[in-house]
Amino acid sequence: MHNITVALDAMGGDFGPSVTVPAAVQALSHFPELKVVLVGDTPSINTQLKHLGYQRSPRLEVMHSDRVISNSEKPSFALRNSHDTSMRIALDLVESEHADACVSGGNTGALMALSRYRLKLLPGIDRPALVTALPTQSGAKTWMLDLGANASVDADSLFQFAVMGSALAQQHLGRCPRVAILNIGAEEIKGNDLVKRCSEMLTQCPSINYIGFVEGNELLSDCADVIVCDGFVGNTTLKACEGTAQFVLDKLKAKLATSTIKGWIARLLFSDMLSEVKALNPDQYNGASLLGLRGIVIKSHGSADISALVNAIGEAVHEVKRQVPNQISDRLEAVLLERQY
Amino acid sequence: MHNITVALDAMGGDFGPSVTVPAAVQALSHFPELKVVLVGDTPSINTQLKHLGYQRSPRLEVMHSDRVISNSEKPSFALRNSHDTSMRIALDLVESEHADACVSGGNTGALMALSRYRLKLLPGIDRPALVTALPTQSGAKTWMLDLGANASVDADSLFQFAVMGSALAQQHLGRCPRVAILNIGAEEIKGNDLVKRCSEMLTQCPSINYIGFVEGNELLSDCADVIVCDGFVGNTTLKACEGTAQFVLDKLKAKLATSTIKGWIARLLFSDMLSEVKALNPDQYNGASLLGLRGIVIKSHGSADISALVNAIGEAVHEVKRQVPNQISDRLEAVLLERQY
Repeated sequence: MHNITVALDAMGGDFGPSVTVPAAVQALSHFPELKVVLVGDTPSINTQLKHLGYQRSPRLEVMHSDRVISNSEKPSFALRNSHDTSMRIALDLVESEHADACVSGGNTGALMALSRYRLKLLPGIDRPALVTALPTQSGAKTWMLDLGANASVDADSLFQFAVMGSALAQQHLGRCPRVAILNIGAEEIKGNDLVKRCSEMLTQCPSINYIGFVEGNELLSDCADVIVCDGFVGNTTLKACEGTAQFVLDKLKAKLATSTIKGWIARLLFSDMLSEVKALNPDQYNGASLLGLRGIVIKSHGSADISALVNAIGEAVHEVKRQVPNQISDRLEAVLLERQY
Repeated sequence: MHNITVALDAMGGDFGPSVTVPAAVQALSHFPELKVVLVGDTPSINTQLKHLGYQRSPRLEVMHSDRVISNSEKPSFALRNSHDTSMRIALDLVESEHADACVSGGNTGALMALSRYRLKLLPGIDRPALVTALPTQSGAKTWMLDLGANASVDADSLFQFAVMGSALAQQHLGRCPRVAILNIGAEEIKGNDLVKRCSEMLTQCPSINYIGFVEGNELLSDCADVIVCDGFVGNTTLKACEGTAQFVLDKLKAKLATSTIKGWIARLLFSDMLSEVKALNPDQYNGASLLGLRGIVIKSHGSADISALVNAIGEAVHEVKRQVPNQISDRLEAVLLERQY
């Protein structure tokens, strides 16, 4: 069995080592091929390990860093002042090939900027994108990107998002995924210049199974396998989904709370419904992948608990096994060849 | 009592006179001050009136038009070829002050373009906006605009949306409304140039109670009275809300359908929940107002049923009483005066 090494930013996220250390230990028992490098404040990490009664093993390494990038730091400042921070060291381990992937729950903007600076973009990619799989009515998944890595993009970048999303989804589905653009109407005449231009580009691309525009109410309807949009639209729509799910559940709960039998059924229902609803918050996707980089970087939510962070580490293991960056490169090369002829 | 005349595009919407004529007749009984001018194919309208056993009254007038703007027509084509269409005649009645408001369930893009061409924009307004009131957790309403009248806007237009929304909400609330901008984060550094620039403009505007950025998951949380965004973002986020509400309810229904007691409670619950969920579809808002025009134009959804269209006519009556365009003008004038000093 081939070892997979994940560099975990132990100081990232709202709870630091009190969540990252137990998550690393749990992940080691879940994934037998996994090795974790915990990057952060050694005394804090050791306290947590001792607290857990963890027996030292070569599968868990600790690398010291006493500097953390705060959530309020601008990406540009973080770039200039990242030296010796836990996030930067974790990414450097991927860059130097001492680790296969980096997982961090730290400042998203800083993680984006540093990942791009340290790992570089894949050839032909102008901007990385944050992607995750949404649940749908049929039980299938729909991959949506960008979820906020870029506040604004051009048509070339949106086209690249489609190629990256298609490459990622194809591996999960084992068939050529249906790719759509999120728009304000299904007709060709609808939308802004960005989506119209990208639609033209995708129409001329035989290896992408482009099915046209979809609307906001179709996100969770399994109408497409991949849905692309700019990061502003992706972030606001996905957060709107989460807010609405919460709104509807709160309303139902209030109605159900009025009598004993109803209350009993409510408790029966909502324990598992609530976890499905949480999965609709784009910040909660553990983990969302930064696609378009030469390395694998998984963004865990800042407020992720232990099991959510284990999921993010699991996502990293999965992407290493599937060699996602190589898959994207291959797909992109095929598309570029098509466009030449 | 002052009469209020509404010009109703009898041919607009998916069902034409079979919905518009009964809606007009119902609205006349709901609103004693109302007079309706039904604009459309006279034989079809008369057939419907006869079917309803309607007794002719001076409160219902029929104006013939045998041309309709189809839903697939581009706004630019509709502009050039609108002559004698039911939508155009209804708008002309407002322009010539034979009617106080126009209600149409026809082609949204054409209605936008024709309204602007016939009624003209208020001084100081560059673009009209589609607005509606969203339900929130507290039971209060939040006005959101633009919901898709403009696929892209500049910061000046977004600022004007904030002024228009503030003027509209103030009348309902009787206090200075909290105005927010929809963004991908709450911090000042987040977002694209559009929202950052508009945020600066609103911060410098004492008569607008600007409270900063809100995120997509806060739309239904009563965190603001007015939320502004460009029409692309507004349309996709609101439709995402509707799709998610449907998704959650479908999931709950599927769970509840498994046993008899649960099924019984489900039926008890969902009859009224479903109507609340429908109110989350921006296309279903009957009616959404086109703000920024010199006249009152209400967009009814194409698939609106009779009661939904009666609601849209009611909204028109309400806006005529409140003289919404004048309120917007006054607010805009106050803001411009502030900016001069």
